[in-house]
Amino acid sequence: MKKRVAVIGAGPSGTAVLRAFQSAAAKGAEIPEVVCYEKQDDWGGLWNYTWRTGLDEYGEPVHGSMYRYLWSNGPKECLEFADYTFEEHFGRPIASYPPRAVLWDYIKGRVEKAGVRSWVRFRTPVRQVTYDEKSGKFTVTAHDQVKDHLSSEEFDHVIVASGHFSVPNVPEFPGFRTFNGRIMHSHDFRDAVEFKGKDILIIGRSYSAEDIGSQCYKYGAKSITTSYRSKPMGFKWPANWEEKPLLQRVENKTAYFKDGTTKEIDAIILCTGYLHHLPFLPDELRLKTENRLWPLNLYRGVVWENNPKLHYIGMQDQFYTFNMFDAQAWYSRDVILGRQKLPTLDEMRVNSAAWRAREEKLEDAEQMIWFQGDYVKELIDLTDYPKFDIETVNKTFMEWEHHKAENIMGFRNNSYRSIMTGNMSPKHHTPWLEAMDDSLESYLNESRVPGK
Amino acid sequence: MKKRVAVIGAGPSGTAVLRAFQSAAAKGAEIPEVVCYEKQDDWGGLWNYTWRTGLDEYGEPVHGSMYRYLWSNGPKECLEFADYTFEEHFGRPIASYPPRAVLWDYIKGRVEKAGVRSWVRFRTPVRQVTYDEKSGKFTVTAHDQVKDHLSSEEFDHVIVASGHFSVPNVPEFPGFRTFNGRIMHSHDFRDAVEFKGKDILIIGRSYSAEDIGSQCYKYGAKSITTSYRSKPMGFKWPANWEEKPLLQRVENKTAYFKDGTTKEIDAIILCTGYLHHLPFLPDELRLKTENRLWPLNLYRGVVWENNPKLHYIGMQDQFYTFNMFDAQAWYSRDVILGRQKLPTLDEMRVNSAAWRAREEKLEDAEQMIWFQGDYVKELIDLTDYPKFDIETVNKTFMEWEHHKAENIMGFRNNSYRSIMTGNMSPKHHTPWLEAMDDSLESYLNESRVPGK
Ligand SMILES: Cc1cc2nc3c(=O)[nH]c(=O)nc-3n(C[C@H](O)[C@H](O)[C@H](O)COP(=O)(O)OP(=O)(O)OC[C@H]3O[C@@H](n4cnc5c(N)ncnc54)[C@H](O)[C@@H]3O)c2cc1C
Ligand SMILES: Cc1cc2nc3c(=O)[nH]c(=O)nc-3n(C[C@H](O)[C@H](O)[C@H](O)COP(=O)(O)OP(=O)(O)OC[C@H]3O[C@@H](n4cnc5c(N)ncnc54)[C@H](O)[C@@H]3O)c2cc1C
Ligand SMILES: NC(=O)c1ccc[n+]([C@@H]2O[C@H](COP(=O)([O-])OP(=O)(O)OC[C@H]3O[C@@H](n4cnc5c(N)ncnc54)[C@H](OP(=O)(O)O)[C@@H]3O)[C@@H](O)[C@H]2O)c1
Ligand SMILES: NC(=O)c1ccc[n+]([C@@H]2O[C@H](COP(=O)([O-])OP(=O)(O)OC[C@H]3O[C@@H](n4cnc5c(N)ncnc54)[C@H](OP(=O)(O)O)[C@@H]3O)[C@@H](O)[C@H]2O)c1
Repeated sequence: MKKRVAVIGAGPSGTAVLRAFQSAAAKGAEIPEVVCYEKQDDWGGLWNYTWRTGLDEYGEPVHGSMYRYLWSNGPKECLEFADYTFEEHFGRPIASYPPRAVLWDYIKGRVEKAGVRSWVRFRTPVRQVTYDEKSGKFTVTAHDQVKDHLSSEEFDHVIVASGHFSVPNVPEFPGFRTFNGRIMHSHDFRDAVEFKGKDILIIGRSYSAEDIGSQCYKYGAKSITTSYRSKPMGFKWPANWEEKPLLQRVENKTAYFKDGTTKEIDAIILCTGYLHHLPFLPDELRLKTENRLWPLNLYRGVVWENNPKLHYIGMQDQFYTFNMFDAQAWYSRDVILGRQKLPTLDEMRVNSAAWRAREEKLEDAEQMIWFQGDYVKELIDLTDYPKFDIETVNKTFMEWEHHKAENIMGFRNNSYRSIMTGNMSPKHHTPWLEAMDDSLESYLNESRVPGK
Repeated sequence: MKKRVAVIGAGPSGTAVLRAFQSAAAKGAEIPEVVCYEKQDDWGGLWNYTWRTGLDEYGEPVHGSMYRYLWSNGPKECLEFADYTFEEHFGRPIASYPPRAVLWDYIKGRVEKAGVRSWVRFRTPVRQVTYDEKSGKFTVTAHDQVKDHLSSEEFDHVIVASGHFSVPNVPEFPGFRTFNGRIMHSHDFRDAVEFKGKDILIIGRSYSAEDIGSQCYKYGAKSITTSYRSKPMGFKWPANWEEKPLLQRVENKTAYFKDGTTKEIDAIILCTGYLHHLPFLPDELRLKTENRLWPLNLYRGVVWENNPKLHYIGMQDQFYTFNMFDAQAWYSRDVILGRQKLPTLDEMRVNSAAWRAREEKLEDAEQMIWFQGDYVKELIDLTDYPKFDIETVNKTFMEWEHHKAENIMGFRNNSYRSIMTGNMSPKHHTPWLEAMDDSLESYLNESRVPGK
């Protein structure tokens, strides 16, 4: 009988797995039956926007953390698929920081072309995975929400690709129970226009804090205050944006900070990151980690060392995204196809520990990017995923960092050269700060107008 | 070996079961081992307020649907426990419409007195329940979140008491994806002060619509518009409150209604009810029903007809609450103790069908109250739960309805006679519309001041 592989999630990571298997089949390989469980009604993961927050129409936690007017926060040249370029998808080079809808379109384009949509069971969250030592098989229990039917099937391999920027980490600060304004996590942020004319307090100092603050600025918030635990972001902020040390408490509508200052605020947005939340896995199969570049117990960042039939894709913190998931997916596929031999458990652990030791010494974003670049390169060299020049990707990331340091509200006006095609990307028709419409049509149609 | 009973949920329904078994033990009966799984950090169910919305600190859906300044929406005389009166708990009669904190205190008081807290495993959501025909036992899989440990245990009986006003029913209306204001469900409503000075649109015509609208009015909303699907509520609303037929769509910040009128709004609160959401149960054990007085497949509203070792408490729509859960819990206990004999499956079905047929003919709230009163009476007559006069409870409900019809912003200023003690409740010290502080201290301390 054909082997069976379950993939949990059809976001960029899960669809990378589908494409990896399909591409092997297209080259004549025998591939297993692949069943992909997806709880949303379409693929694309976080890129599939929803206005919903909290629980969805079937009572499931809403997966989406993206919001209206979200634009790529890094150059698209750094995440480009090596087997399906932006130029192939859009028929021409496009600008470097596309809004969400454009990237979603691109992700979908590749797997539509591959013809693997029928492998996905939509609206079917996985509820439980168990492993039986005797049969050597997994049982995956999932809930078809349209039919309201819970059922179980057996698989030889399970690949977890359910994402880890979806379940919010929500710390409590003194006074939250009685604060008279709105308190929310970035996971539930949807429309910056709601905060027009308001005094906003953001907790956190990472990408969500920076980008949600910038959104609120762009769409007319009265003031933005970001409050950090470790250190300020240090960008050159607009005049109505202030960085403060950590919030100590709130009282009525007043926020009190560690430096003794206070500020009257209307809303608090907790940009405090996300949890790895895998409630469908038993203890011995469940990855437990914070958001970091090298979680332990995953050989080559993919293979669950204590049971190498279980793989994880995309569980690392991310500078590299789409093409890193590809590198992992192709590697995972080759392990399953028997093209990759795994070392002993001890050897896997020694290997992981070495990566972790290196990770722990990283001092800044630039070093982290080179670290993750090395990781992606190691994987790509192992499989038939189209090779691409990691060093140039790293350098593009460096340029991006410098552009941000120069002009945090203007870095998205830059463009970069595609590593995959060698072509320079055009400048976008409108500076980001003035581009209020984030639709695909606005982004693409107008950019066709020559000279604009 | 002792029989084992699992109870899922430690809200008013689950704690009623604990008290039912403890009271049998106190009278000398041999009782099974009872294990109660509760996903929150304390008991009391919905009455255990949280400021959180969406997902909690462990990534679980927030159970709480209650909000600040919530006061009982019915007379406390109608929900009083027959085995533990308000007078016993508070040491004196108190007014008839207590705020949430006071009712929570009361619920807890009974089970603290019973000494059953050690039966509850807090922070332990149940993930899966299965039934094995061969062994005749259930396996309950639950996640201890503090230890982050998933484990399974066997039980002879399972009692589901997980509530059904916690997972929101969230319909979509055209334009929601691009509406520039806030959209939320009543499940996520926490503080009316946030809506001060705002134009609020509420969808729905039931208790949440009425009460959240009243809260927003009380705390200074600029206007309240409620939009109904079936028919208006028809109360004598304040001048800035309007009832409109159903919302058709929103555009920017404009709402369009079925009668052709429009209204500029800042926020939409969907008071569109809740789902029975039991993701931990397999198809053959899972209750599927809308919110109604007589869900099918439950003999006497409690016993799962297709597997009578499985019971459900509190799954009906509710006029009667705490003492109805008690009536069900005592009955469930007696079935498990073998004190109640169950008829054949066919007989159970005929019985349920008769109740359903009667339910379908009910025309208004008054008839529904008499229907549910009859149901509670039937159960109470079967067990040793202290008898009380259902007809007088029904009549108190009728008075409540008339008080609401007379004065929707003032009905909570009335008081009623305790059916359990025969004592008249005092009037509250402050009219509800002026009572801004909903704390237990404010409610109780000041009511001690004589003459106030
Ligand atoms: C606000 C935000 C902005 C971002 N912006 C960028 C950006 O600009 N550029 C960039 O490169 N990256 C960005 N990212 C990073 C993002 O993590 C990746 O781009 C990418 O979406 C990760 O893909 P994934 O497939 O691993 O996870 P996800 O995209 O999260 O997809 C996981 C999928 O698994 C499904 N799933 C989850 N649980 C289950 C279950 N139990 N059963 C079945 N299905 C399940 C989900 O429904 C979802 O479809 C952003 C992330 C966030 C939160
Ligand atoms: C906004 C609002 C206001 C209300 N006001 C009133 C009122 O004024 N008067 C009145 O009489 N009634 C009121 N009610 C009705 C309310 O339903 C009952 O008072 C009562 O709380 C129902 O008790 P319960 O135990 O059945 O359910 P709940 O109170 O919902 O308790 C269920 C418990 O089960 C737990 N649980 C759920 N899933 C799991 C799981 N998988 N594993 C472990 N534990 C789980 C929950 O954490 C919770 O503690 C109100 C309801 C709402 C929504
Ligand atoms: N396209 C876009 O524009 C965009 C927008 C948003 C997010 N994203 C992506 O989304 C992902 C997640 O980013 P993220 O910023 O949400 O999460 P993150 O990178 O994990 O950062 C979490 C932040 O929360 C802070 N934090 C955590 N607990 C805290 C506490 N108790 N008190 C105070 N601060 C606390 C951390 O502070 P310390 O650093 O001080 O420890 C850190 O700044 C990233 O991949 C990012 O690229 C992209
Ligand atoms: N203590 C308090 O003050 C208080 C406050 C709030 C709630 N509660 C309790 O909470 C429980 C739940 O009450 P609830 O009001 O949330 O729920 P509910 O009683 O089930 O009512 C749901 C409402 O939503 C409407 N609805 C559903 N789908 C709709 C759609 N697609 N479009 C338009 N309308 C739609 C229904 O309309 P139709 O009727 O037209 O079909 C109904 O009015 C009750 O037990 C109540 O007593 C108590």
